Amino acid sequence: MRVAYNEQMTGLADMLGEMAGLAGTAMEVATRSLLEADLSLAEQVISDHDQITELSVLCEERAFALLALQAPVAGDLRSVVSGIQIVADIDRMGALALHVAKIARRRHPNHVLPEEVNGYFAEMGRLAVTLGAGAKEVLETRDPERAARLREEDDAMDDLHRHLFSVLMDREWKHGVAAAVDVTLLGRFYERFADHAVEVARRVIFLVTGKMPVDPEEKDALES
Amino acid sequence: MRVAYNEQMTGLADMLGEMAGLAGTAMEVATRSLLEADLSLAEQVISDHDQITELSVLCEERAFALLALQAPVAGDLRSVVSGIQIVADIDRMGALALHVAKIARRRHPNHVLPEEVNGYFAEMGRLAVTLGAGAKEVLETRDPERAARLREEDDAMDDLHRHLFSVLMDREWKHGVAAAVDVTLLGRFYERFADHAVEVARRVIFLVTGKMPVDPEEKDALES
Repeated sequence: MRVAYNEQMTGLADMLGEMAGLAGTAMEVATRSLLEADLSLAEQVISDHDQITELSVLCEERAFALLALQAPVAGDLRSVVSGIQIVADIDRMGALALHVAKIARRRHPNHVLPEEVNGYFAEMGRLAVTLGAGAKEVLETRDPERAARLREEDDAMDDLHRHLFSVLMDREWKHGVAAAVDVTLLGRFYERFADHAVEVARRVIFLVTGKMPVDPEEKDALES
Repeated sequence: MRVAYNEQMTGLADMLGEMAGLAGTAMEVATRSLLEADLSLAEQVISDHDQITELSVLCEERAFALLALQAPVAGDLRSVVSGIQIVADIDRMGALALHVAKIARRRHPNHVLPEEVNGYFAEMGRLAVTLGAGAKEVLETRDPERAARLREEDDAMDDLHRHLFSVLMDREWKHGVAAAVDVTLLGRFYERFADHAVEVARRVIFLVTGKMPVDPEEKDALES
C-alpha cells in the first residue's frame, strides 16, 4: 500500500513538473511566433495545447484516486491538495501562452507588435520561459530557495510590464489604438503567466515550510 | 461522525455561497465606483476585499479538515475536491472586482471611462452581479438548470466584450491611447469575472451529473 502510494505521489509530482515544462515551452514558442509573425509556430502552440489540457485532466484524476484509495493524512494529504491547486495554475499558464499564439495568428501576416516594443516582449518571453522552468524545478526538487528566486524573476517581469505601460501611455505613442489594445492584452498575459508560476512556487514553499508567502498579485504595481 | 460530517459539508457549501455573494457585491460596488468616479465606493471594495480573502482561507481549511478527519469517499470526496477548486475561482472573482476598484481609485477625480462606453460597462456590471448571484444560487441549490443559465449570461457578457472591442478598434475612437488601455483591461476583468462564475457552475454540474461541460474560455471569441 505504502509503496503504491509513494509511486503514485511521485507520479503526480512528475506530471505536474511535465505540465510546467510544457507551459514554459508553449510560452517560448508563442513569443517567437509573436516576434517573428510566424504562423506555423503559432499553430504549433495552438495544436500542442491539447497535451497540457490532457495532462491537467490526468493530474486531477490521479490526485482524486490518491485521496479515494489511500486516504492520505498530514503532509501527504497536504501534498495532494496542493497538487489539485497547482494543476489549475499550470493549466492557466498554458492557456495564457495559447492566447499569445492566437493573437499572433489573428494578425498574421502582419506583426502584432510595433518594432518599438519588440525588446520588451523578447525579454518578457525570456523571463516567462525561466519562470516556467523554475516552476518545473521547484515541483521536482521542492527547494524553497529556488522557489524564492522565482519571486525575483517575477519582480523583473513586473518592472518590464510597468515600463511597457509607460511606453504605451506616452504621448509619443504613434502606433494607434488597435496596436495599443493588443500590447495591453499581451502584457497582461505575460504578467499573469509569471504570477501563476510564482503561485506554484508559493504552494510548494507552504508544503515544505508550513508558511504561506505573500500573494504575488498583492504587490502588483499595475493593480495598485 | 456522519452528522458532524454533514454539518461540515453544509458549512463549506454555505461559505462558498457567501464568498460568491461577496464577490458579486464587490463587482456591483466597483462598477458604481467606476461609472460615478466615486472614491469612497472604490475604497469600500478595497477594504472589504479582506473578507473574501479570509473566507477563502477558511474554506480551504474546512475542506482540508474534512479530508483529514472524515476521509470522505465517492460523491462526498468529489464535493470536497470541487470545493477546493471552486474557492480559487471565487477568490479570483473577488480579485477582479478589486482591480476594477483600484483603476477607479487611481484615476480619481477623473472618470476612467469615456462617456461613449459607459453603457457597456453599466451592462457588463449588471451581468457580473447576475453571474455572481447565479454562482451563489448554484452552490446553494446545486440546480443544473440554473447552472446552465449562467452560460447564457456569460454569452451576453462575451457579446458586450466583443462590441466594446469593436468600438475601441474603430478609427473614430477619439479618447486617446491611455483611455483605450484602461478600457481594454477593464473589459478583460469583467469577461474573466464571468468566466470564473461559469467555471463554478461547471464544477457543480460535474458534481451533480458526472459530466463536465465545455470550458468557457474555449469559445471565447476574443481569444480565438
